[in-house]
Amino acid sequence: MEFMTGVKPKENKELSELINGMEGAQVKVNGAVHTIRDMGNIAFVVLRKREGLLQCVFEEGETQFELRNLKEASTVEVMGVVAKSEKAPNGIEILLKTITILSEPAETMPIPIAKWKMNTSLETNLNLRPIALRNIKERAKFKIQEAVVRGFRDFLFEQGFTEIHTPKIGAKGAEGGANIFKLDYFHKPAVLAQSPQFYKQMMVGVFDRVFEAAPVFRAEKHNTKRHLNEYTSLDFEMGYIESFEDIMEMETGCLQRIMKLIEENYEKEAKILGLNLPKTDEIPCVRFDKAKELVSEKYDRPIRNPYDLEPEEEILISRYFKEEMDADFVFVTHYPSKKRPFYALDDPEDTTFTLSFDLLFKGMEITTGGQRIHDYQMLLDKIKARGMETEGMEHYLMAFKHGMPPHGGLGIGLERLTMKLLDEENVRETTLFPRDLNRLEP
Amino acid sequence: MEFMTGVKPKENKELSELINGMEGAQVKVNGAVHTIRDMGNIAFVVLRKREGLLQCVFEEGETQFELRNLKEASTVEVMGVVAKSEKAPNGIEILLKTITILSEPAETMPIPIAKWKMNTSLETNLNLRPIALRNIKERAKFKIQEAVVRGFRDFLFEQGFTEIHTPKIGAKGAEGGANIFKLDYFHKPAVLAQSPQFYKQMMVGVFDRVFEAAPVFRAEKHNTKRHLNEYTSLDFEMGYIESFEDIMEMETGCLQRIMKLIEENYEKEAKILGLNLPKTDEIPCVRFDKAKELVSEKYDRPIRNPYDLEPEEEILISRYFKEEMDADFVFVTHYPSKKRPFYALDDPEDTTFTLSFDLLFKGMEITTGGQRIHDYQMLLDKIKARGMETEGMEHYLMAFKHGMPPHGGLGIGLERLTMKLLDEENVRETTLFPRDLNRLEP
Repeated sequence: MEFMTGVKPKENKELSELINGMEGAQVKVNGAVHTIRDMGNIAFVVLRKREGLLQCVFEEGETQFELRNLKEASTVEVMGVVAKSEKAPNGIEILLKTITILSEPAETMPIPIAKWKMNTSLETNLNLRPIALRNIKERAKFKIQEAVVRGFRDFLFEQGFTEIHTPKIGAKGAEGGANIFKLDYFHKPAVLAQSPQFYKQMMVGVFDRVFEAAPVFRAEKHNTKRHLNEYTSLDFEMGYIESFEDIMEMETGCLQRIMKLIEENYEKEAKILGLNLPKTDEIPCVRFDKAKELVSEKYDRPIRNPYDLEPEEEILISRYFKEEMDADFVFVTHYPSKKRPFYALDDPEDTTFTLSFDLLFKGMEITTGGQRIHDYQMLLDKIKARGMETEGMEHYLMAFKHGMPPHGGLGIGLERLTMKLLDEENVRETTLFPRDLNRLEP
Repeated sequence: MEFMTGVKPKENKELSELINGMEGAQVKVNGAVHTIRDMGNIAFVVLRKREGLLQCVFEEGETQFELRNLKEASTVEVMGVVAKSEKAPNGIEILLKTITILSEPAETMPIPIAKWKMNTSLETNLNLRPIALRNIKERAKFKIQEAVVRGFRDFLFEQGFTEIHTPKIGAKGAEGGANIFKLDYFHKPAVLAQSPQFYKQMMVGVFDRVFEAAPVFRAEKHNTKRHLNEYTSLDFEMGYIESFEDIMEMETGCLQRIMKLIEENYEKEAKILGLNLPKTDEIPCVRFDKAKELVSEKYDRPIRNPYDLEPEEEILISRYFKEEMDADFVFVTHYPSKKRPFYALDDPEDTTFTLSFDLLFKGMEITTGGQRIHDYQMLLDKIKARGMETEGMEHYLMAFKHGMPPHGGLGIGLERLTMKLLDEENVRETTLFPRDLNRLEP
């Protein structure tokens, strides 16, 4: 009888092991042949490994292999001796003794994935996504994205939040509207979740503080550089707040943790991407109406609609705070009630506005959040005042009927945050497999 | 101008702070009124907080509040003095000075959520999910579920895996078949992902090792205790494996980490649920055909179909290994090729079988995994031999055409694993908001 006892140490070395004083040692290493530079008697065979690139030196007579039998994009296991090399990535190289082919490609690459910049159009990149992502810069973007999610979760766990998994198929959309994907669920009409809003609020009554990092679905017909029809939403909701500023404080803490994690654990990828981390030690807050005034004055731009922010105004608000106080992030608070969903809590001092906010990052909204109504009757009144029906919201309302603490929360668009962090122009650049009006594949 | 600088220390105390030598201190605490036991001159007001229950002592004359104005399910902020109390949960109580109501319920609870056992039917529990989960035992189940996901992720991060987010809407199902939810995607036919299988394999070519914890959708018409139409799948896929046992080793490591995390960080919830952690130090492995023989002999049961496992056989295999070697988990290996998807790698020594496995836990399959075909031509041949079409798989095949390392992976059903861990009989018990043939709400 055989038993599994856990992960056994492997003979094959990873990059982080090789760079740790292994000079002179004979080692086994595997990887994908990223590129081959044939110099005549010797050749540089660069392996792509999960931790980075590894230069291997093929030498006629020394390496027991016929170089012409080695193809780019093959995967191999090699044996050789570790040597220092200032010019090689990570300062080391492997002097090859043997090469064993693990697998070979059937065709050569249609794009130069081994180049620093591939110079392909975004459209081509997306069409060839399964292989385009093998480019070192492309790959690094999604390690940074990983750091964003990790930092978000790590921080919230420390702050006493519970991670939840809420259903993505439901009988009715949380926030209603036309932007809902519909499907047939065993001959019953069903929809895909636009957000975990209702569920996370209900769960505040159970766990006080909850979060979820999961896909959401928006059937919006916008085909812009900032819209996706499916994206990853980082959501949290917290009870017993004293004011909606508690939520902004928590988000600031999340952002600080994310930047720290990138600095400490994703240094390599940050360097590959030339990443300049934004300041998160203090994030300015400005009222919605005040923000409109400030940019109208400074940039000599008339206020056309006092109750909505145009994308250009978001850009100008960010520009204002960058110029005035070198801030990359700015919280815009007190959005007009008529532009927020029914569950947003109106400001008791002026019910035209809500106790809510957006977070702008380099000119783009990456978060919407705020305090919610927690009183059952107030919620019913607001639903009625908006001419909405409670039908389909019975379970949501049940939580309120039986007592809910004051609470609020937010949702962060993961791909947008990553996009702005990396100074990309299109959210598709920081989405592994984007879904938009025209794209369902790959 | 106001600035956000991160999370500020709060005046209100959490349970873990209160039990840490605060006797005699006057403190502020908030929470939901879980239950009130009126004893005449004094009353015990138990608050439900995210870390557990907190007993507060109301005393006529000492507490500035009219007890009759306090309702169960209200949320409150109280002020009082911390005192030791052997009979109270966590060994402390608060001698109340003031009570401030934060919110009040509109109706009394339809179920006794403050009781240890609510004695409601599963159907009622699920219908009243938003409030039924406020029961301490119900809530604890999902903290254990959280630990499962955390342990899975923590371990895989350490092992060099990259977390990915793959699309749930696609043009075609990964594994085909009839169990696919269909939807209209801007007048184009689309489907919901049954698994991240194709994407995680493609990403092995990019990151070597990847994982995802995300929802999957199965339009199966089974209405059993173990089936859900939407569930959370813990998936990983790893490249450069030497054999499919590498995958089982990795899963064993994940399970060991999960149990350790529960032991160290979820002690409270494990106690509430009377959880006995299963042994994960060594997990027996048995071949599919051998397993069938063993239980057929021991339990005197004829082998009806040599190429499939009946649910009863899964139960008997688990029973066999429990009886013979006190094992709760057992890996069943080498499943018949005809019962595995096309991408499963056949055993070169006998192509009737595959280099694959299921993990059984207390009689139920909680994982399916195995080595995959990595050679492009072999994959094309298998697709052809099965009479399948490559149409719609162009992007998947692209990864193989351009070279893929030997690889394999698995998918773990989160709700099933939690169910078996907690010795529950129905997977709906360990699903926050289950989706089945008849249930789309809440």
